Amino acid sequence: MADETLAALRSLMASHSPPLDALVVPSEDYHQSEYVSARDKRREFVSGFSGSAGLALVLANEALLWTDGRYFLQAEKQLSNQWKLMRMGEDPAVDIWMADNLPSDAAIGVDPWCISVDTAQKWEHAFAKKQQKLIQTTKNLVDEVWSNRPPPEANPVLLHPLEFAGRSVEDKLKGLREELVREKARAIILAALDEVAWLYNVRGSDVSYNPVVHAYAIITSTAAFFYVDKRKVSYEVTSYMEKNGIEVRDYGDVSSDAALLASNQLISTSSAKETAHDISENPTGSGKTGAGHDNSAVEENKNDLIWVDPGSCCFALYTKLNPDKVFLQSSPLALAKALKNPIEIEGLKNAHIRDGAAVVQYLVWLDKQMQEIYGASGYFLDSKVHKKDHPITAKLTEVSVSEKLEEFRASKEHFRGLSFPTISSVGPNGAIIHYSPEAETCAELDPNSMYLFDSGAQYLDGTTDITRTVHFGKPTPHEKACYTAVLKGHIGLGNARFPNGTTGHILDVLARVPLWKDGLDYRHGTGHGIGSYLNVHEGPHQISFRPAARNVPLQPSMTVTDEPGYYEDGNFGIRLENVLVVKEADTKFNFGDRGYLSFEHITWAPYQTKLMDVSLLVPEEIEWLNTYHSRCREILAPFMNNSEMEWLKKATEPIAA
Amino acid sequence: MADETLAALRSLMASHSPPLDALVVPSEDYHQSEYVSARDKRREFVSGFSGSAGLALVLANEALLWTDGRYFLQAEKQLSNQWKLMRMGEDPAVDIWMADNLPSDAAIGVDPWCISVDTAQKWEHAFAKKQQKLIQTTKNLVDEVWSNRPPPEANPVLLHPLEFAGRSVEDKLKGLREELVREKARAIILAALDEVAWLYNVRGSDVSYNPVVHAYAIITSTAAFFYVDKRKVSYEVTSYMEKNGIEVRDYGDVSSDAALLASNQLISTSSAKETAHDISENPTGSGKTGAGHDNSAVEENKNDLIWVDPGSCCFALYTKLNPDKVFLQSSPLALAKALKNPIEIEGLKNAHIRDGAAVVQYLVWLDKQMQEIYGASGYFLDSKVHKKDHPITAKLTEVSVSEKLEEFRASKEHFRGLSFPTISSVGPNGAIIHYSPEAETCAELDPNSMYLFDSGAQYLDGTTDITRTVHFGKPTPHEKACYTAVLKGHIGLGNARFPNGTTGHILDVLARVPLWKDGLDYRHGTGHGIGSYLNVHEGPHQISFRPAARNVPLQPSMTVTDEPGYYEDGNFGIRLENVLVVKEADTKFNFGDRGYLSFEHITWAPYQTKLMDVSLLVPEEIEWLNTYHSRCREILAPFMNNSEMEWLKKATEPIAA
Repeated sequence: MADETLAALRSLMASHSPPLDALVVPSEDYHQSEYVSARDKRREFVSGFSGSAGLALVLANEALLWTDGRYFLQAEKQLSNQWKLMRMGEDPAVDIWMADNLPSDAAIGVDPWCISVDTAQKWEHAFAKKQQKLIQTTKNLVDEVWSNRPPPEANPVLLHPLEFAGRSVEDKLKGLREELVREKARAIILAALDEVAWLYNVRGSDVSYNPVVHAYAIITSTAAFFYVDKRKVSYEVTSYMEKNGIEVRDYGDVSSDAALLASNQLISTSSAKETAHDISENPTGSGKTGAGHDNSAVEENKNDLIWVDPGSCCFALYTKLNPDKVFLQSSPLALAKALKNPIEIEGLKNAHIRDGAAVVQYLVWLDKQMQEIYGASGYFLDSKVHKKDHPITAKLTEVSVSEKLEEFRASKEHFRGLSFPTISSVGPNGAIIHYSPEAETCAELDPNSMYLFDSGAQYLDGTTDITRTVHFGKPTPHEKACYTAVLKGHIGLGNARFPNGTTGHILDVLARVPLWKDGLDYRHGTGHGIGSYLNVHEGPHQISFRPAARNVPLQPSMTVTDEPGYYEDGNFGIRLENVLVVKEADTKFNFGDRGYLSFEHITWAPYQTKLMDVSLLVPEEIEWLNTYHSRCREILAPFMNNSEMEWLKKATEPIAA
Repeated sequence: MADETLAALRSLMASHSPPLDALVVPSEDYHQSEYVSARDKRREFVSGFSGSAGLALVLANEALLWTDGRYFLQAEKQLSNQWKLMRMGEDPAVDIWMADNLPSDAAIGVDPWCISVDTAQKWEHAFAKKQQKLIQTTKNLVDEVWSNRPPPEANPVLLHPLEFAGRSVEDKLKGLREELVREKARAIILAALDEVAWLYNVRGSDVSYNPVVHAYAIITSTAAFFYVDKRKVSYEVTSYMEKNGIEVRDYGDVSSDAALLASNQLISTSSAKETAHDISENPTGSGKTGAGHDNSAVEENKNDLIWVDPGSCCFALYTKLNPDKVFLQSSPLALAKALKNPIEIEGLKNAHIRDGAAVVQYLVWLDKQMQEIYGASGYFLDSKVHKKDHPITAKLTEVSVSEKLEEFRASKEHFRGLSFPTISSVGPNGAIIHYSPEAETCAELDPNSMYLFDSGAQYLDGTTDITRTVHFGKPTPHEKACYTAVLKGHIGLGNARFPNGTTGHILDVLARVPLWKDGLDYRHGTGHGIGSYLNVHEGPHQISFRPAARNVPLQPSMTVTDEPGYYEDGNFGIRLENVLVVKEADTKFNFGDRGYLSFEHITWAPYQTKLMDVSLLVPEEIEWLNTYHSRCREILAPFMNNSEMEWLKKATEPIAA
């Protein structure tokens, strides 16, 4: 099938006007999403590689796939011999490769809806040296050859009530419009699905794992538009939108509306008046900007820029605008969304408690199964397997156990699904950083191997993401030393205090330095923001070895994960992950009057003490572990039955140096 | 006097053609040096502020001085009320300030020999918005009004023998010419004094503390020039230069020679032939570049760029060149010089042992004095002063004790002077980060206060830099807690292991995180490179909170200091500093095949255990301290007399948790 696809694509490339020397097939959908719907998995359809990040490049005689370190092993397994794997960080970047390896004047095609402004501009710059051209295909060539492509979704748009959102659309629009005035912009185009969902307090199910709706938004100083497949919009949603001064338009209208916006002809037919009215009833606000509503016409004259986030807005929409009048800068909503309001923080904490209970219940269940089926010594005892034979019917696989984990989560209040595909990985599969087991091919649980599971769920009140690594038999001293080094990094980062203004990039090394001591490391970042019943990965901050393009410091009320790891190809993988909330620290002093920050763990599930080499832990680490475990016991108790509680008590026994 | 100077300068500014709205007086000399000779201290002469870093700006009715956090307190003390202190990091940068506060079309004068290409281009960019102009004064206006300016120095140029330099001029020139070919350059202009000294294996005494000669160098593929006041050059040096194919020219000729170089007319009168001969006798080399000498004419045709380091080359020389044919990039000598050869490393280690012995002898002497004169309990005992009165004749001051420290150093082999002005500071003066005590005004030693000394020396075989903080009475629990936090940072950084490719910027946080725990911090970088009988501060690497413009990773055989601190205004300062050498680490594993690095301490002097709150130290830190102290005892023993050895034994007693 892959052969036919490549042949069909190559034929379309040859008959394209102009003929294409290369066709780029990115992973992203029309919103530059990380997770995409089934019908948007064009790169996977073309290449067979199913990881979440990657880019396919089809040439007349060659096909290449770029992906990052998380996916090298998976891509090697999934790519046919028609494909060449390009390792990001080791091989040249795709634009450099194209500039170097494609002929002068080469025509390089791409669907301009699938790449960001940033990417397009970077590529055009790289291509300029040899007069190569980036050609915007008018149709998506992959869609043309994808005969059984899934149909468009028609999932309903759901309102996200204030009791979970914590902040009204009205208030969010007001804040956004103040930002527009501050930057002399008269409008902003939003393409990032989570930003649209956050701003309008709506959720959906168009994309697996991310509760978002396929939609764009345009917000001007007086009007707001919501571009969405109207089949998805109920009467309730329509009237909610109307009440908030938001006009619902067809998804496809965004293209022509962007052009109208550029020429100052985008007019709201239904709600402009309403909006102006709504806002003038609420004349409070920052005041700093002096953006009154009475003089909005005057403001509009001065503010003639259109704000476009070059990272999330597609190149197709950007090309509708006059580039001289575009304000290319990260969307202000990324930070606004990342700074969780008190109701969101409360919700996140509650969601994480329920989620932690599910994880503990899963571990209790799995521990019992491993002993019964595989004769494992179990979660607490450190010895080899006694018996080995077991009836084949009782076999546990990476997928079957992850379904059990989902069951425990699904039994919890407000559960809405998983927040990403569960990584449930035994032994060597644990070393595949974003391993995604398939029912047919996945491995069987093994009492003599490490087991790593990284999973999370969507709850109405929050999104979760947790990783634990466990062993039900006798871990080797090497496995214990590695687990302890990862744990030390996890604790070292989580316990850090740091002055305001510090970025996650600065803190990243704290999670690595215990591993570096032994010459160990991991090839991924250490932390990402997490949404409030939204995407499991969000910015604008991160904790990473690489400096971010936007060096946004960590700020109180941000969420961020703390997830160092260690991966030994062919043997095992270890990762430990909690979600943290940034908060003000109660430091003894406040040098430089900057204010100091710290982290609060909101994830609750024990770390397996059997896997620790306690002699490598310092008193501060032991004390932290004991306190954390005692809190786990306390917080999760209400969710446990008797036998679960007995297990949890044992799992959270204090350790001594 | 300052008033008259400002008045005289303002009169020259008014009569200048064009009249100047502002005159910039930078700290730097004609070589962008950090330390400058007495006659080059124009900024100090104008403003009265004597710190090593700063910039004065004179306007018709205002005078402003910018300096950084190390000097805020000192500048406040030294500046008259005619001057306004501008705090770097808090107030706008000087170029932004000028762009914002000077009128449109303002003429801003500067001596183009005193600013780097980088600075000039940055300013011109900032000035462009309001059509302000950077005016290159043809004379230095400060020199015009400085009637008693010291005369030019006539210190001899000294050859730095191979037994200390470790690498011949011939070999260094060959390496440099290979770099030129690699970057398609036909020549390089060197203005940095330490680079000229390093390349030609010469030393001098034109600048206090830095054993350099005021000189420029131009190196082409076939010729090499040394621009220096010929009065400084002995017959021996001349013939050494000739033998190495280096032509000695007058210091002032560099300006016209740069112009000749630009038009391809710079010809070596004496040594071109010799050079070609010399090199063709040594046809080894990297080979990678294919830069044979037989085809040097061909190479020269292809390689038509002139390499200029924008950070160290003065704007005046740059403007002699055709900007299209300039290769603006950091000099390759910065890294070549930073990567110490085995003989330099051996020399540095030896120099640091002798230097450590001097520091211990000083502490022994000081301990005795503090007890005898001030009735202090002393270095080892932790109690209040018993008696207080002492004969005024025996008074110890910050300056008098630092002279004693210099005496101990001067008694050591190969001593050539100090490597920077000794910071000898009692109590609150310790909080002035680059405090420089003056004999007339400095403080008296105080048995109830912390005493910080940061000092170093030049030895023929190496440059040293060490800081210790001690207390001869009863430190407060707060002082001990702060000392211990600084010590933990010092050990944490020094004990780090890290993969190849890691910059000092990444590691900086390791020295800060124990301080951050308590809401403490320090407003300076954590480490700098150190020369081999050269400048005490050198790049291109550093350990700093701020990312460097050139992000040069730490590499084996680099030297770098490890010097965290804590400064409490009005109370005390703490800093601990050792010099480290980067080396390959013997890690158990080698994840990613990158190779891991670690540091070797080469500074030897005890840390005062009395100042430690041992309960805050973890076993690894205690073990490191005990090992370090036992090595101190062993290594310094040969230099100690009986009573000194007794003291050292006591000072290096192991501590227990």
